[in-house]
Amino acid sequence: MAESHDAVEVIHTKRDRGTLTTSQIDWMVDAYTRGVVADEQMSAMAMAILLNGMDRREIADWTAAMIASGERMDFSSLSRPTADKHSTGGVGDKITLPLAPLVAACGVAVPQLSGRGLGHTGGTLDKLESIPGWRALLSNEEMLAQLDDVGAVICAAGDGLAPADKKLYALRDVTGTVEAIPLIASSIMSKKIAEGTGALVLDVKVGSGAFMKSVDRARELAEVMVGLGTDAGVNTVALLTDMDTPLGLTAGNAIEVTESVEVLAGGGPADVVELTVALAREMLAAAGRDDVDPAEKLADGSAMDAWRAMIAAQGGNPDAPLPVARESHVVTAPADGVLTRLDALSVGIAAWRLGAGRERKEDPVQAGAGVVWHARPGDEVRAGAPLFTLLTDTPDRFDRALAALEGGYDVAPAGTPFEPRPLVIDRIG
Amino acid sequence: MAESHDAVEVIHTKRDRGTLTTSQIDWMVDAYTRGVVADEQMSAMAMAILLNGMDRREIADWTAAMIASGERMDFSSLSRPTADKHSTGGVGDKITLPLAPLVAACGVAVPQLSGRGLGHTGGTLDKLESIPGWRALLSNEEMLAQLDDVGAVICAAGDGLAPADKKLYALRDVTGTVEAIPLIASSIMSKKIAEGTGALVLDVKVGSGAFMKSVDRARELAEVMVGLGTDAGVNTVALLTDMDTPLGLTAGNAIEVTESVEVLAGGGPADVVELTVALAREMLAAAGRDDVDPAEKLADGSAMDAWRAMIAAQGGNPDAPLPVARESHVVTAPADGVLTRLDALSVGIAAWRLGAGRERKEDPVQAGAGVVWHARPGDEVRAGAPLFTLLTDTPDRFDRALAALEGGYDVAPAGTPFEPRPLVIDRIG
Repeated sequence: MAESHDAVEVIHTKRDRGTLTTSQIDWMVDAYTRGVVADEQMSAMAMAILLNGMDRREIADWTAAMIASGERMDFSSLSRPTADKHSTGGVGDKITLPLAPLVAACGVAVPQLSGRGLGHTGGTLDKLESIPGWRALLSNEEMLAQLDDVGAVICAAGDGLAPADKKLYALRDVTGTVEAIPLIASSIMSKKIAEGTGALVLDVKVGSGAFMKSVDRARELAEVMVGLGTDAGVNTVALLTDMDTPLGLTAGNAIEVTESVEVLAGGGPADVVELTVALAREMLAAAGRDDVDPAEKLADGSAMDAWRAMIAAQGGNPDAPLPVARESHVVTAPADGVLTRLDALSVGIAAWRLGAGRERKEDPVQAGAGVVWHARPGDEVRAGAPLFTLLTDTPDRFDRALAALEGGYDVAPAGTPFEPRPLVIDRIG
Repeated sequence: MAESHDAVEVIHTKRDRGTLTTSQIDWMVDAYTRGVVADEQMSAMAMAILLNGMDRREIADWTAAMIASGERMDFSSLSRPTADKHSTGGVGDKITLPLAPLVAACGVAVPQLSGRGLGHTGGTLDKLESIPGWRALLSNEEMLAQLDDVGAVICAAGDGLAPADKKLYALRDVTGTVEAIPLIASSIMSKKIAEGTGALVLDVKVGSGAFMKSVDRARELAEVMVGLGTDAGVNTVALLTDMDTPLGLTAGNAIEVTESVEVLAGGGPADVVELTVALAREMLAAAGRDDVDPAEKLADGSAMDAWRAMIAAQGGNPDAPLPVARESHVVTAPADGVLTRLDALSVGIAAWRLGAGRERKEDPVQAGAGVVWHARPGDEVRAGAPLFTLLTDTPDRFDRALAALEGGYDVAPAGTPFEPRPLVIDRIG
């Protein structure tokens, strides 16, 4: 039982730029979870943390207190090592879909607890739910059995893991306190540490379509998270990857599943393949299996086999046709030339407005909605040829999606020099 | 109707050190009053205001929005000009009690809306409620009639004035966001402007027993409030006065009424008389009646007549004996010498712990409880002679009160030079 404190005294400490003691943090998080500290007190605290910061010890204590608020899972009974991946969220970021079965095919189990999308970044569960029959909710026993059998699970996090984080995340969302590195880092890492994975690879997105707009902020977040994981005994590595440009050629739900299956079949957009393989290598290395080459497992079809087994184990039919949007609208290239810029945030907001994402947690998403782009930066385009296809079941949404895309891309005269940006910007760990 | 905004967007503006627009402020305060903006959103906002500040225009808009949340009173039908006084709160600060009838006796009406005490600073209504029969709650009509007839009213602020402030104040109290100058200034001034007084004198306390510990912070608060009042057409002046030492010789409820009556009778401690007369002169000048000398009205008994009429008009019996504490405990001087320091905060906490104040809004107070000190800084004391008398109905409180007094005063050898501090430190307006 934590030593008792007074909420106002703890808030004053952080408000006045002091350092919170372990005892203050343990009490605050526990009392908030139990409802003794009120929402309005925790939101004042969250704003004070956002504006005045926390040192590494405070963040580690805060994370430990959130883990202690719930249960911890244990995969030590598995015959395989475990590795998980977490992305801080981007546009067209379907990487988890090909990655989890690929790593499983390489002999490392992937216990991937995922979330639903909110705002302009898509959610992995929303994408998979476009597959007929597939279900996101598994019991801990089902999850363990599937890991043992198939080697990969992508499912919803249960209520038992870090309930303090669940409560605090909902509060931060409505109080303008999402963008605090100590709170982002402890939110992500408390769930991943409680989940019990042996190794963890973080994909920290940087750019217009990401939470972190600058490389410096992204690196700071990555360093804090790698430190938290390492200290908790989880072999943790982070890649900083570009999110100025959306990943692949699709942002939506069913259309991202289709693109992922193309990658598993040995095709797909080069950037999606590149990032999938890069993250797979990191996961395998962190789990002690760098003797296996994931590119081979992609080429020989074993990753596709693992995908089919993983989808089927959760009730999905990997051969069923996916939902298709009822309406489409094509945007053509204004002139011959080269696409020099495609803004991830603009595409993300367009897909969101078409119905691929949700505004409120309780909203449904449209399985078929989204944006397909027919060129990536560096590609040549021809006047009048399709540049974007907008998809939705509700055509009254086209206008607002088109408005979001406006100014979100540049077509320059053919021959304009184009300098591609690296996809993987940095590695921390 | 204010233009509609999104609470998170408004919070982000202040969080990111931006300046809130008039429209954002109008909407936020109105939506909070209506319950559309939730407590947890307003508390994050309050913390952002505390840490990032507000400029004068924002504070004026915030104040105006709080005034607009409720009714405004109007004293223009009175034959006399009106002047009010507000103290930011101190220990032994009974000044309102002699001041209101004194100014009324000089021909200026005093509509004094007061509060109850919370923490170590006493409340004017708590003090007056020790008078048998006296009631704090008046309707607006009763208040106006009494102002017309007696010329002075000290009563509780009704629920109709600035309800946004009432709600916000309760929130700030539990979320560690009390000490923000924009919020303190707008809280005080919204009620005083809505009250409709023509002139206002602010007594801004500085020192250990006050909210403002430094002269710089107190001056900043005073300047903001004088600006707000002046811009709203209220003739506003502020005095910065010392609160390192408690006022007079008593801190409590009934014992402060007794001391106030002594002042009205032409006696009483010199500092209480000095501050009462200084504030009366400011109120008279601000109301355009600097031709009257308040010291004369104190000497000739007309202030005492006004006091008796004011108490009687609210059901009180000015001749009734006041409640006396059931138990007392005397602290004697440790040695012959001179009292060089008497700490206002220590005395205030001792009186509070004896039962004169309350811990929670809903707690009762003891009418007879408090602290009497028998010397003021600069006075000679004799070993073994009484230095403090502690009063309470519940003698188990003595120990904690004595602990509060410990280290709260210094007795130096006789002849030690003593430099008295000025009571009035500065004047703004």
